[in-house]
Amino acid sequence: MKNENQRAPHLTAVLVGDNAASQTYVKNKMKAAAEVGITSETKQLPKTISEIELLSILTDLNNDDNVDGILVQLPLPDHINERKICNFVSCDKDVDGFNEKNIGRLCLDMNTLIPCTPLGIKELIKRSEIETFGKHAVVVGRSKTVGMPMMMLLHADGRHETGAMDATVTICHRFTPPSDLKQLCKMADIVIVATGIPGLIKEDMIKPGATVIDVGITRVFDEKTGKSKLVGDVDYENVKKVAGFITPVPGGVGPMTVAMLMRNTFVAAKKLAESRNDKFIN
Amino acid sequence: MKNENQRAPHLTAVLVGDNAASQTYVKNKMKAAAEVGITSETKQLPKTISEIELLSILTDLNNDDNVDGILVQLPLPDHINERKICNFVSCDKDVDGFNEKNIGRLCLDMNTLIPCTPLGIKELIKRSEIETFGKHAVVVGRSKTVGMPMMMLLHADGRHETGAMDATVTICHRFTPPSDLKQLCKMADIVIVATGIPGLIKEDMIKPGATVIDVGITRVFDEKTGKSKLVGDVDYENVKKVAGFITPVPGGVGPMTVAMLMRNTFVAAKKLAESRNDKFIN
Repeated sequence: MKNENQRAPHLTAVLVGDNAASQTYVKNKMKAAAEVGITSETKQLPKTISEIELLSILTDLNNDDNVDGILVQLPLPDHINERKICNFVSCDKDVDGFNEKNIGRLCLDMNTLIPCTPLGIKELIKRSEIETFGKHAVVVGRSKTVGMPMMMLLHADGRHETGAMDATVTICHRFTPPSDLKQLCKMADIVIVATGIPGLIKEDMIKPGATVIDVGITRVFDEKTGKSKLVGDVDYENVKKVAGFITPVPGGVGPMTVAMLMRNTFVAAKKLAESRNDKFIN
Repeated sequence: MKNENQRAPHLTAVLVGDNAASQTYVKNKMKAAAEVGITSETKQLPKTISEIELLSILTDLNNDDNVDGILVQLPLPDHINERKICNFVSCDKDVDGFNEKNIGRLCLDMNTLIPCTPLGIKELIKRSEIETFGKHAVVVGRSKTVGMPMMMLLHADGRHETGAMDATVTICHRFTPPSDLKQLCKMADIVIVATGIPGLIKEDMIKPGATVIDVGITRVFDEKTGKSKLVGDVDYENVKKVAGFITPVPGGVGPMTVAMLMRNTFVAAKKLAESRNDKFIN
């Protein structure tokens, strides 16, 4: 229902300290917001800020009806408990999907705000019309922001609220023996890698025609040019010869993550507006 | 710290309707409680109880300082939203570990009350000194009470609060093609089955020496005796010829589930007593 108070969705980013990569990430996200008509603000805070001061700022943002999405850029300085901060962001505004309650809802296949990278990969697979039902997917890396939620979206029931992908899923990690990693990847129809180890996935580990999705992004020194460059976890030039689908780094997953942040902000804004409208009508 | 008000842990079971299996389960749990010195009460409620009446009873139990653990026996009648009920049980008294916030904490490797069946299987593996680190485990069945939390405890980092098992993990389910199920099980060092399909796992699907853990429990008609009997998901008589370790049905996992319910009740009682003491001191 339309009302007089309609406005664009609003995303607030909280950036603590002066980590160069974090500043770039936030800048790119805010640029994307502007492009799609989401208004935004970046709260740049000193790295010396105390946990209690940060919690107080989040309280204000949680209570502010003009803010729909709150994004706390990680990592935070060592003296701040990241988990406490993630849990403190209102579930309704948690556009990164990192609140423990939202993670629980995702793992129970319930409608919720889902972490942007796995959500973006799901969208990438869907839009590319890659079959997942009954297929075997291997996830390499068990992070709580990518590997774990990815495994959840891949294996769970497509008839439930998260519209998951009904694949058989294997999760590998730092303690998977290299021979097992190779054997399992080689069996997979879809391989999703998020480890931060450049070149981990090689040509002889991939089944011809398989889909390879690379979440890794590491800055390395390029001997050819004498400059630094960004690379993924997949030996792209060689793996692309056997893969049926492959994502590049940079590009590929990164822009999808940003796009899903926009989607989550829109979804959050819509729900919050509806609940404010309901209150108004009642 | 000891105080005047010390008492035994107390577990309250909420049993709705007259499902025979549910009544047996609750009776067995209450018997186990008595054996280990946990006091208990079963609230037997009519199957016609409304959701709001049930929520009101849970509110009382949540607020009752004499109750440490609350167990709502599932399934509930169709007119009651099970998820709503599970989420309404106080996280601190949620001895089944089904509250969405506790599920989220488990999936983030955080200290929490963990669902009893996967917790019992973890204990069974540990006490049997079966190596999991870097091994390949296959979980068959993706239920939210067994398969999903089991996969979590198997694959996650042993250095984190849940003391997980650092295995490579594959999760299979109803849409895994039979040939894939066989191939993956055959590769596994540990196979954990929770599907409710009698005899699903056969001798030729198991690697010699592997560990086979059977969570299934189905009542079937026994032609030999003309009576009904309980069977698991594993063709026990034949699989035991190749397996290194195997759990029987009945026995095996069932008693471990009950034991972990007792442990969870004790852990909940201890924490609640500590927090009451802290209040008293302050």
